[in-house]
Amino acid sequence: MIATKPDLLQFFKKTRSHSESICEPLQIEDYVVQPIVDVSPPKWHLGHTTWFFEEFILKPHKKEYKLFSEDFAFVFNSYYESVGKRVVRTDRGNLSRPTVKEVYSYRNYVTEQLSELLNEEVSEEIEGLVEIGIHHEKQHQELLLTDIKYILGNNPLTPAYRDDFQESTIESQKPQWIEIPEGIYTIGHRGDGFAYDNEFGRHKVFLQKFAIANRFVTNGNYLEFIEAGGYENVMLWHAEGWEWVQTHDISKPLYWHKTETGWQHYTMQGLNSLDPDAPLAHISYYEAFAYAQWKGLRLPTEFEWEVAQEHFSWGQRWEWTESAYLPYPGYTKVDGALGEYNGKFMVSQKTLRGGSVATSEKHTRPTYRNFFHPQLRWQFTGLRLAKTL
Amino acid sequence: MIATKPDLLQFFKKTRSHSESICEPLQIEDYVVQPIVDVSPPKWHLGHTTWFFEEFILKPHKKEYKLFSEDFAFVFNSYYESVGKRVVRTDRGNLSRPTVKEVYSYRNYVTEQLSELLNEEVSEEIEGLVEIGIHHEKQHQELLLTDIKYILGNNPLTPAYRDDFQESTIESQKPQWIEIPEGIYTIGHRGDGFAYDNEFGRHKVFLQKFAIANRFVTNGNYLEFIEAGGYENVMLWHAEGWEWVQTHDISKPLYWHKTETGWQHYTMQGLNSLDPDAPLAHISYYEAFAYAQWKGLRLPTEFEWEVAQEHFSWGQRWEWTESAYLPYPGYTKVDGALGEYNGKFMVSQKTLRGGSVATSEKHTRPTYRNFFHPQLRWQFTGLRLAKTL
Amino acid sequence: MIATKPDLLQFFKKTRSHSESICEPLQIEDYVVQPIVDVSPPKWHLGHTTWFFEEFILKPHKKEYKLFSEDFAFVFNSYYESVGKRVVRTDRGNLSRPTVKEVYSYRNYVTEQLSELLNEEVSEEIEGLVEIGIHHEKQHQELLLTDIKYILGNNPLTPAYRDDFQESTIESQKPQWIEIPEGIYTIGHRGDGFAYDNEFGRHKVFLQKFAIANRFVTNGNYLEFIEAGGYENVMLWHAEGWEWVQTHDISKPLYWHKTETGWQHYTMQGLNSLDPDAPLAHISYYEAFAYAQWKGLRLPTEFEWEVAQEHFSWGQRWEWTESAYLPYPGYTKVDGALGEYNGKFMVSQKTLRGGSVATSEKHTRPTYRNFFHPQLRWQFTGLRLAKTL
Amino acid sequence: MIATKPDLLQFFKKTRSHSESICEPLQIEDYVVQPIVDVSPPKWHLGHTTWFFEEFILKPHKKEYKLFSEDFAFVFNSYYESVGKRVVRTDRGNLSRPTVKEVYSYRNYVTEQLSELLNEEVSEEIEGLVEIGIHHEKQHQELLLTDIKYILGNNPLTPAYRDDFQESTIESQKPQWIEIPEGIYTIGHRGDGFAYDNEFGRHKVFLQKFAIANRFVTNGNYLEFIEAGGYENVMLWHAEGWEWVQTHDISKPLYWHKTETGWQHYTMQGLNSLDPDAPLAHISYYEAFAYAQWKGLRLPTEFEWEVAQEHFSWGQRWEWTESAYLPYPGYTKVDGALGEYNGKFMVSQKTLRGGSVATSEKHTRPTYRNFFHPQLRWQFTGLRLAKTL
Repeated sequence: MIATKPDLLQFFKKTRSHSESICEPLQIEDYVVQPIVDVSPPKWHLGHTTWFFEEFILKPHKKEYKLFSEDFAFVFNSYYESVGKRVVRTDRGNLSRPTVKEVYSYRNYVTEQLSELLNEEVSEEIEGLVEIGIHHEKQHQELLLTDIKYILGNNPLTPAYRDDFQESTIESQKPQWIEIPEGIYTIGHRGDGFAYDNEFGRHKVFLQKFAIANRFVTNGNYLEFIEAGGYENVMLWHAEGWEWVQTHDISKPLYWHKTETGWQHYTMQGLNSLDPDAPLAHISYYEAFAYAQWKGLRLPTEFEWEVAQEHFSWGQRWEWTESAYLPYPGYTKVDGALGEYNGKFMVSQKTLRGGSVATSEKHTRPTYRNFFHPQLRWQFTGLRLAKTL
Repeated sequence: MIATKPDLLQFFKKTRSHSESICEPLQIEDYVVQPIVDVSPPKWHLGHTTWFFEEFILKPHKKEYKLFSEDFAFVFNSYYESVGKRVVRTDRGNLSRPTVKEVYSYRNYVTEQLSELLNEEVSEEIEGLVEIGIHHEKQHQELLLTDIKYILGNNPLTPAYRDDFQESTIESQKPQWIEIPEGIYTIGHRGDGFAYDNEFGRHKVFLQKFAIANRFVTNGNYLEFIEAGGYENVMLWHAEGWEWVQTHDISKPLYWHKTETGWQHYTMQGLNSLDPDAPLAHISYYEAFAYAQWKGLRLPTEFEWEVAQEHFSWGQRWEWTESAYLPYPGYTKVDGALGEYNGKFMVSQKTLRGGSVATSEKHTRPTYRNFFHPQLRWQFTGLRLAKTL
Repeated sequence: MIATKPDLLQFFKKTRSHSESICEPLQIEDYVVQPIVDVSPPKWHLGHTTWFFEEFILKPHKKEYKLFSEDFAFVFNSYYESVGKRVVRTDRGNLSRPTVKEVYSYRNYVTEQLSELLNEEVSEEIEGLVEIGIHHEKQHQELLLTDIKYILGNNPLTPAYRDDFQESTIESQKPQWIEIPEGIYTIGHRGDGFAYDNEFGRHKVFLQKFAIANRFVTNGNYLEFIEAGGYENVMLWHAEGWEWVQTHDISKPLYWHKTETGWQHYTMQGLNSLDPDAPLAHISYYEAFAYAQWKGLRLPTEFEWEVAQEHFSWGQRWEWTESAYLPYPGYTKVDGALGEYNGKFMVSQKTLRGGSVATSEKHTRPTYRNFFHPQLRWQFTGLRLAKTL
Repeated sequence: MIATKPDLLQFFKKTRSHSESICEPLQIEDYVVQPIVDVSPPKWHLGHTTWFFEEFILKPHKKEYKLFSEDFAFVFNSYYESVGKRVVRTDRGNLSRPTVKEVYSYRNYVTEQLSELLNEEVSEEIEGLVEIGIHHEKQHQELLLTDIKYILGNNPLTPAYRDDFQESTIESQKPQWIEIPEGIYTIGHRGDGFAYDNEFGRHKVFLQKFAIANRFVTNGNYLEFIEAGGYENVMLWHAEGWEWVQTHDISKPLYWHKTETGWQHYTMQGLNSLDPDAPLAHISYYEAFAYAQWKGLRLPTEFEWEVAQEHFSWGQRWEWTESAYLPYPGYTKVDGALGEYNGKFMVSQKTLRGGSVATSEKHTRPTYRNFFHPQLRWQFTGLRLAKTL
């Protein structure tokens, strides 16, 4: 789990500058808004990942460390608490200050201070914390990109993020079922290299014989479902999925628009004609499930996915699985504030496997467990079909 | 799955009259109210179980069957649809008509008509439908009792349901851990006798070595958790559990009251001193989880429970498990309206195993899968601890 | 303001028995439900008006008076407060107990106790309180009737209240404008006979020359508005009225139903064809205003109405006025709990003048000021047009 | 109502540049956020006032006028409508684009185009429209300032707007009652100079004898109310005011903070000690009413205020009156879209009289009628006491 120090410093600096390069195409105004509660303002991501290094490493471990600003701790903590006389509780998207420029100064200060620290002799504990901080920032890099997509894609002017940003690659291989025999399989992280606590607890599971598709479901596949009245057929939906469809008047994936000249969708490259061959994205679990029902098939479990993944190409779309996000046998939380990291979300969420175009380098792997509530769609979420044999 | 006919008729009649005997202690007013959305008025349960027989058996299968009332179909269907000129959408607890007397007339009419039908030669299909109708009514009998408890227990006058209604039995056996070795186990219904579609799909699972308690957690156990500040310690709770505690200001199980003279709780026998030795009831999954966290233990999965259940006594309390309510391998829905029965609820709910004092005779078994949303407490829900070895 | 004692006793008894006769056509179930927050269960009205006499007169003024029940004070107070160990906060329509029979016992007990008191020598203060209690009950009698109408009319079975209950009389006089010259007029109660504190503060106002219709707007008049697209024309509505129309999908008065065979409306006599000549009822202020806008006219102010009322027939419909419900000059609240009676509602409500078929005898007069929020429709509310000359 | 042309052009240009100078102290981020629904982002105000000139004057009246941008019409209209393929409904504070720079380009373009138009011969109709557009922008200038105050004052960093921005002047005159005799008075705009349609309809009212304070209520006066438990005494409040206090946990005016070192308040100059002698600001009507109740006094009506205003100094605080915002006799809406301007708000709002430090030059007068819902506090709202004699 521990890198050698020079590598760690380089890994740290590279990660920090990658966050900044993600934001390069933005206008200052784009850093500020929060159009839905799930989407944080880019400047908040930049500040929060910085605060994490300051709060958990510099403040307790660097001698005579001077906080960049007392106030920033309140602003960039995930939970504001009313501390001191000038703090007013507010939502992230309501904060015009600190300015983007001040946030970058904060970043530079903390990056320098931490680099200084890493140039000295540091304990394994600190190295471990830095590693967690780096992976924490990598996790936010994915959110940074998906949140930027929402901020721009939700704007009536639908500006592009970058003209050369390709969201997906068309799969050209022939559709096939990959068959996996029944048996006992081992699930979970092997223990070499970094992994989150929710991946450990390597354990055996028994799987029935099943088959899994070698390709993603595409936009074109999903269009057939829409045109066949999938959104109007109650029998295909979970009760709460149906209620969600009715309440929010859902009739298509997020970012799809039906226009007089045909279907369009917003991607990082702006508003364009829908490509029927591209992998489907931005659907909820409810939609993934309804689509599979309509096909007479189902989603794979996360165990099936993990066992079969070496037989297909993955990583350009998070894939909804049928599994609920639950602890592995023997799972226990780390002590202290960092113990809150994963365990407290292990109810009412679905596991996703894979990765996406927004996933940072080295930030997914075959055992990586992503998780979201079943109605969420702003991530690059798609599906792959499976069936019991 | 099919009983011989004379038994079926008797089974049918006994079930019908049992629903009515549950309501015997009620005043007419008690049949009408719906204090929370989860609790249906008793007269609605009486009417809805009747409508089920009328709609799915008498109407399609009895020659020249005459509906008791056109209007009742709208009132007692689970989903009102705006059909015809006089239908007004409304909530169940807002309906003073049909009166209780009229509902009993409706019951008598349908019971007689169906008895007539069963005295003739009927197909296996009809026999199967009658069996489903009977089990449907048995399921509602449990709700009838728990809903009555809520209606009376939520009333400031806290009237008793019946002075001789004992909710639970104190377990006197010595607390012990039952150890189960790791291995492959078979889960699901064997196929003899009635079972719901969610229990079929008998399949193998691999379980790690674990231990499970031979007794329920008691009121006294849980009091220690309360007194140790369990409801104030964020680290014990899921994020959404904590939000639920804060939003609804939860600090004790449902029906518990802290008074000047000590803890009391409302049971079917009225308001009485809390018995510390009785099995705990009326807690949410969030509370069950937080309690287990506090003990450094966990809830069993539904598979662990099913495998271990022959080694302990169960059936007086539904037991929250750590498992999400999901389909077994190969699960498929029945065609038609009855296909909606179970599958559409297989998301965002937790499985419970066991049974309760309110469960109708023969209406639970080792493979029976009950399910509720994690915040619900009006059922007789408790917990049993487990640990990975 | 003070009646002689024998009259007061008789007035009291007559008022009490009138409340009970209003409820005579009800089934027990009808006494219990609260389909919307504005509608109270009939048994609550019966209990609350009784509690008023007990709390403000018998308890403080009758020697050795014994409360009928400690619990009823909590149940029938307008505001429940958590007092003592057995009180559970709940909504009125969720209370099955006390039963209707118990509420009638409570009524009989209090009626007898108060009659006893009035047979003795009592102070003017007590006589004044009894008078207020009587008028309080009369006010609730109107609500009792309109709430019963809602309970029955909102039921998909639309049962009649009484076959012989005539809601309105058709006006046969020729439509005419009554012209009132500009000048100084005196507004408010003269001081003889009972009146509420909001009617006192008799004062002068200056009115411009105006004309007021000698007839109510009828159902037929309003149908023209509907057919002319009144509900779709944003220019006719207040901004908040338009939002109300959109949010609640309003396209007709309350109790109107458009059926294949034409317009029907629910009255106390059941569901019947709409009578185009009958005075319009059950509209909100927003609708009254929009209708007047469409006609190029306006509603009268409450002062214009009071000045002109001797020239037209009124009393079968509450009439929305353009006036906000505000205090008259010099208005001050009575000290103590009874001081809450009217003043605290003097913001964001509109004044209505007139009376209705549901208004109790002697419970309106030319100076009587009724008031409701602009969106409410379950009272018998209609309108009369006016114009500035 | 019509200025000579050179004056109009100058008036137009001065007004346009004043809006821009208001925004001079802002950072780009401050232009974007909408912390509560009542507060619009500054860039929206700048764009919307520009769109008004483009939509109602340039587009219909300037030959070959070319829209600056098709999209801006959707963004800066008060009501977005789904027009065309690229429009997505969203809230004002969720829009990062168009950027501030683009909005200023839009402003410059429209200012130039309109100046060109005014340099030609234009009709009286156009002159009238320009005048309305100027006053529309002046109205938004006040909102611009109060919205900026909210954006900065709601930020945990509480940045100052401008160090030299003085919000109010202390009144040093001796407190006195100004007595006004009863009689007939004339209310409304005389007709010379610009006024809104809601001020016309000059008419007579009869006023009772009354007295009105020659000074505003001060912060120090209001502190006494707080310290006397005013916020905890239900008898001082309207029913809906009390509910507002409870629901939102109100215990002080907006922008007041109770700190360990005493009371502070945020002003345009930042966070400072509360000045007890300064006029009170940022209270709701409910609070103004409760304060007056506590003093045994009342608020003036808007008519009393208008009649008495020549006897006291006013204009640095909007003053809540007891009057509801209603049409004057004979009020009719202008035809067309501009007819929506005032009339549609004439329900459920209170009239305020006076002006504030944020009010643009020449944008108030003795007959000016401002109006807000009773709970709103982000304007500079205070009060002056009155009493009936």
